[in-house]
Amino acid sequence: MTDRRQFLKLVRWTPMRFTAGLVSTLLLALPATAADVPTAPNGIQLIRGWEDWKVVAPSYRPDKDHVRVILGNDKAIEAMKAGTRPFPDGTILAKVAWTIRKHESFPAAVEPDKFVQVEFMIKDAKKYADTVGWGFARFVGPTLKPYGEGKSFAQECVGCHVPVAANDFVFTSLAPRPR
Amino acid sequence: MTDRRQFLKLVRWTPMRFTAGLVSTLLLALPATAADVPTAPNGIQLIRGWEDWKVVAPSYRPDKDHVRVILGNDKAIEAMKAGTRPFPDGTILAKVAWTIRKHESFPAAVEPDKFVQVEFMIKDAKKYADTVGWGFARFVGPTLKPYGEGKSFAQECVGCHVPVAANDFVFTSLAPRPR
Repeated sequence: MTDRRQFLKLVRWTPMRFTAGLVSTLLLALPATAADVPTAPNGIQLIRGWEDWKVVAPSYRPDKDHVRVILGNDKAIEAMKAGTRPFPDGTILAKVAWTIRKHESFPAAVEPDKFVQVEFMIKDAKKYADTVGWGFARFVGPTLKPYGEGKSFAQECVGCHVPVAANDFVFTSLAPRPR
Repeated sequence: MTDRRQFLKLVRWTPMRFTAGLVSTLLLALPATAADVPTAPNGIQLIRGWEDWKVVAPSYRPDKDHVRVILGNDKAIEAMKAGTRPFPDGTILAKVAWTIRKHESFPAAVEPDKFVQVEFMIKDAKKYADTVGWGFARFVGPTLKPYGEGKSFAQECVGCHVPVAANDFVFTSLAPRPR
């Protein structure tokens, strides 16, 4: 009797467990889908890996109480060093902002407190011809919520960048380096 | 007589010019020697390539009107992410400082103006046992002039870092990153 019950239990549960296990395995094996990646209203997806890019410059925004760092992919850094304008297609700049706080053990220094946002400028003269050759996107807060309502949000970015049209619409310069 | 004087001048100067030219050529062909590398009074040489390291955090020093960025080699970034304290031997941190100016086209933003200095902390618990396990060095201005008179200069660094002894004498934390 015990043997029979054990056998029935096995028959009843094995396929379910097996199926559940198989589904989990398949899900784990699937690549992350587009739905997982925060996407701006103009279709630009969050670019991961910017934490590992090289520094173009730090900056400070007293009006917003932010410290920031502007990073570039290899193409951006090359163009910055060489002074290439317009920037070549494939250039990507990331501007990362944090709120500030006084350092706990050294209040004269101001350090990052909370992550505010990461913003991207992606150069593709043809693809982003409507927005001066750059794809703009901003992802806000720890959940990286895409900024903007509707595709036209990027015209707001363009508007702000117009004063630096002569520098291919880029505000940041490579911070001076010693020899 | 004019011809003879010109001939004598030629004979007198040619070998000197030739030798000078040869020496210059040889010097240019030689690889950079240790003597070319700025060296702090405690023997720590300037580490090149920090421009390509990853960002630990930006910072701002209102008391000095500096913006700064703290960079780390791969070992430093790993330890920062994992929260490893004390930092493992081989960790190197670089703190780079610039004077500030208002952005020409967007005065609300403060950007780097002139390069001030780069400072290093090199972890080697045994080698730098006299200075709390860290080798300290500072190289100042565009010529990267080593800071300090005599080996004891590094005690000045240690003195300032004592308030963060509980964090293995490191002021900077990894700036918060989104998920």
